[in-house]
Amino acid sequence: MKALEEKILKDGQVRPGHILKVDNFLNHQMDIAFINEIGKEFYRLFGDRPINKILTIEASGIGIACITAQYFNNVPVVFAKKAQSLNLDGSLYITQVKSYTHGGTKNVIMSKKFLSADDHVLIIDDFLANGCAVNGLLDIINEAGATLEGVGIVIEKGFQDGGKELRARGIDVKSLAIVKSMTDTDIEFEEQDD
Amino acid sequence: MKALEEKILKDGQVRPGHILKVDNFLNHQMDIAFINEIGKEFYRLFGDRPINKILTIEASGIGIACITAQYFNNVPVVFAKKAQSLNLDGSLYITQVKSYTHGGTKNVIMSKKFLSADDHVLIIDDFLANGCAVNGLLDIINEAGATLEGVGIVIEKGFQDGGKELRARGIDVKSLAIVKSMTDTDIEFEEQDD
Repeated sequence: MKALEEKILKDGQVRPGHILKVDNFLNHQMDIAFINEIGKEFYRLFGDRPINKILTIEASGIGIACITAQYFNNVPVVFAKKAQSLNLDGSLYITQVKSYTHGGTKNVIMSKKFLSADDHVLIIDDFLANGCAVNGLLDIINEAGATLEGVGIVIEKGFQDGGKELRARGIDVKSLAIVKSMTDTDIEFEEQDD
Repeated sequence: MKALEEKILKDGQVRPGHILKVDNFLNHQMDIAFINEIGKEFYRLFGDRPINKILTIEASGIGIACITAQYFNNVPVVFAKKAQSLNLDGSLYITQVKSYTHGGTKNVIMSKKFLSADDHVLIIDDFLANGCAVNGLLDIINEAGATLEGVGIVIEKGFQDGGKELRARGIDVKSLAIVKSMTDTDIEFEEQDD
């Protein structure tokens, strides 16, 4: 998505530790008009699938998923929660997700009543690097017996292995921008087909 | 908002400890068409103010704020983060917020670059009970010297003191539904003017 690459070049900042900060439009301050363009693009890429639910994980994925759902006939969005505790009532899907940003492993939970074998799911998230968050959501989808229709990512760090590993398993991951390499002064993107 | 009261009566569940679960449409699974109705209603209530930014706090407020922003000419949404650590770079607004759901106190942070004395802010959140989250956001707005234009809440627990205390300080809090009392079998709402 050309407009996204241009926005990353204009507004993104590279920080030590392979951190790409896009917090002025994507995951702290959110540019709502631009995120609508992102939602439209996800619909262009996945709109032919029988998607009836969008899945994401708190926190940064939620707003993007909600805006995107509007282009998918307002399908419900369900967001997995990073559990502070496991005392939510009812029966839960529980999986562990490693966090590279914060360190350690977190329980990620989703109420069983919101995902079943009847569901056809699109996963949406802001970033894909090591793939930990997406793999956590895939665990939940598998446990539910739901059908994965695709994974839509705003920015993939192509120099980390998450995307490659998912695609090697036959999972249809589409990232609107794939960063091939980045330095303090330059960000390069992988060329993608339309 | 009559449609919201009806939805709470139909889909909400009261649990021990004065917990009102509305996780099937508001804060775990999200009913996107209905949240658009909520966004429209916030615009009806606050649309005459010179709002240029919507503020919320992760996680459940984010989706509601993003959908609502679309009715406010796509003003940016900024969400305060519950900090795992305080090693975000740059200068931050930091405040403490008590959590009654999870226990303890959390640091809540926001990058200073996203809020300044020029901003006219609408706070949006899903619930108001003791008012801890809203008070944390007010601390940040005060520190920034920004102007608060109003506080829009989806569901207020009127039998707790957060809303009363905020209104007593002259803050314009509008809640789309105010629960006056609730038991296992019944939920009563406060009557509100249009």
